[in-house]
Amino acid sequence: MPSRIPALLEKLRLSSLDGFLVSKEANVSYICSYNIRDSYLLVSNKETCFITDFRYTEEARKNIKGARIVEYKNLFKDIAWLVKKYKIRRLGFEAKDLNFAEYTKIKEYLVPKVKLIDTFNVIETMRQVKSPEELTHIREAIKITASAFDFLKNCIKQGQSELGIAAEFERFIRYHGARMSAFNIIAASGPNSSFPHAGVTERKFVKGDSVLIDIGVEVNGYKSDLTRAFFLDRISPIQRKIYKIIQGAQDKAIEAIRPKVALCKIDHAARSYIAKHGYARFFGHSVGHGVGLEVHEEPSISSKNTSFAQEGMVFTIEPGIYLPNKFGLRLEDMVLVTKKGVEVLSGAIDKSI
Amino acid sequence: MPSRIPALLEKLRLSSLDGFLVSKEANVSYICSYNIRDSYLLVSNKETCFITDFRYTEEARKNIKGARIVEYKNLFKDIAWLVKKYKIRRLGFEAKDLNFAEYTKIKEYLVPKVKLIDTFNVIETMRQVKSPEELTHIREAIKITASAFDFLKNCIKQGQSELGIAAEFERFIRYHGARMSAFNIIAASGPNSSFPHAGVTERKFVKGDSVLIDIGVEVNGYKSDLTRAFFLDRISPIQRKIYKIIQGAQDKAIEAIRPKVALCKIDHAARSYIAKHGYARFFGHSVGHGVGLEVHEEPSISSKNTSFAQEGMVFTIEPGIYLPNKFGLRLEDMVLVTKKGVEVLSGAIDKSI
Repeated sequence: MPSRIPALLEKLRLSSLDGFLVSKEANVSYICSYNIRDSYLLVSNKETCFITDFRYTEEARKNIKGARIVEYKNLFKDIAWLVKKYKIRRLGFEAKDLNFAEYTKIKEYLVPKVKLIDTFNVIETMRQVKSPEELTHIREAIKITASAFDFLKNCIKQGQSELGIAAEFERFIRYHGARMSAFNIIAASGPNSSFPHAGVTERKFVKGDSVLIDIGVEVNGYKSDLTRAFFLDRISPIQRKIYKIIQGAQDKAIEAIRPKVALCKIDHAARSYIAKHGYARFFGHSVGHGVGLEVHEEPSISSKNTSFAQEGMVFTIEPGIYLPNKFGLRLEDMVLVTKKGVEVLSGAIDKSI
Repeated sequence: MPSRIPALLEKLRLSSLDGFLVSKEANVSYICSYNIRDSYLLVSNKETCFITDFRYTEEARKNIKGARIVEYKNLFKDIAWLVKKYKIRRLGFEAKDLNFAEYTKIKEYLVPKVKLIDTFNVIETMRQVKSPEELTHIREAIKITASAFDFLKNCIKQGQSELGIAAEFERFIRYHGARMSAFNIIAASGPNSSFPHAGVTERKFVKGDSVLIDIGVEVNGYKSDLTRAFFLDRISPIQRKIYKIIQGAQDKAIEAIRPKVALCKIDHAARSYIAKHGYARFFGHSVGHGVGLEVHEEPSISSKNTSFAQEGMVFTIEPGIYLPNKFGLRLEDMVLVTKKGVEVLSGAIDKSI
């Protein structure tokens, strides 16, 4: 039995669920410690089924331990049949993953005495705290990203373009241990960097540009997500001023991290520092987010999250200031909450200017 | 007003809907002829609202014409407020896109006299038939993919790996006009190619390998999706035999294409040819699928699809034979249904062996 099933069953028991349908890809991967697309888990006290189609059954039989591999023909009909077989009465499902059409379909096939119960973040909450094995993958992803920053630093020069940086990045990481990038790279130069979620364009770098590089890679399903800023030739006084503020804000947030501190306090530490320097309205996003099997996962480090930091959580700290039509700067590191405080996992990546 | 709204309003009228919430990203992009993530459209006879968050309002104001730009704070509450403002009574939503949690939330905010109506493929059906402008983007994506095949052909040699091919591909396309790849490349060599949905591994090519390369790029949001097979040094008799069968099957399917032919007949043309040669059970997937703003979209070219080909449809024709633990071969082209028959959009890409 995949080792994460007992912990999940215990959570289900507390919610009086005797069955649980896992449909979200990252959650299926987490419980099985193996990733196969378009697959589902039906978890119950009696048995756990890994439900997939003909494309993946061979792979599943080889790699998924402790679950029965079921090849489906009619997905929701087959799930309903299994629910009946295991005599499940209260079946939890992932309300943020199953779409309305899927929900309706499964409801239609289930016998009326089975209750379909919407659940939120059941497995996402488990995923917040990383195991040593998960941390190994995350550290490896960060290491590759660090070497990519070293490499890209030398690519950022006049005449190169944002898209060129993307090209070099995508090639580099695949020769250095990553299967793929974790998300579409942001390589935003000059005024483009004033959009927090810029992508890449054909824009070529010119003198005086700041270039924001936000990259991540995937190692065994685990992601990294890191941002550094680079400058072409000299740094202007305003660029330097803004950079120092976000660096200070990031330091404040990191200093605030330890087990049992409310996550909103970490957000507040960075936000109030930026506000004190008069740039509050140019920092619109939250300070960070969890990273693991997904680039954005629980916990969010935002002003609204009143839950507490726990040892083993991994998240980003990424304050930024975006001056419309001018430029934007952001620094993003990944941290691990430790027993006594915090470890900056990406601390080795230079951010001096 | 974005030019596709009148056609959508006409479809809504036929379903007695006086409002429609578009939530699926590709559908929002289609209606607005512009792509912004995490955005929604509320369409009604009175006005169309493009609903997005602070990250994208500036970009939306610049690029989305004929819709009111609404920056939301509380998405579903704000949508409900707009529904009230426009006096919408029957609000359609995309049942395959909105998740159960979102559905529940919007339902909660709407006043009881508003009916939420689940709809299927309303915009997907419109998207099946491509406009001349869409075809221009698709042709461009195919042209870049064709040059990528030319380039990759010379990379496929002993000692190079599947992952290396991915690295070279990702770099090449960004220097040749594409913003990004359309999906994760498949570069499956030797026995790995016997999985129809293989990805890339560290496996290095050896003598006698066949290498299946399935790639696509994105140009202005429009995708390509094409597959070619390559062979290291000599081609074995069984490889040649299988290749000839899938080539024959593909020819049969393409010959069957013209307006008003049932799509299942196109599938059948390829499938029966493979069956006649004794390999039916090694061809498990459907013969093709639409390509456009999504890599996989309507129409599916499968044994179940009894709807008809229409002028302007673009889809793949991709028969394959997969021999477990040995190798798999597939040929995938993209075709356009023309007034009189068919144009193989990717016909210029060599498939002789």
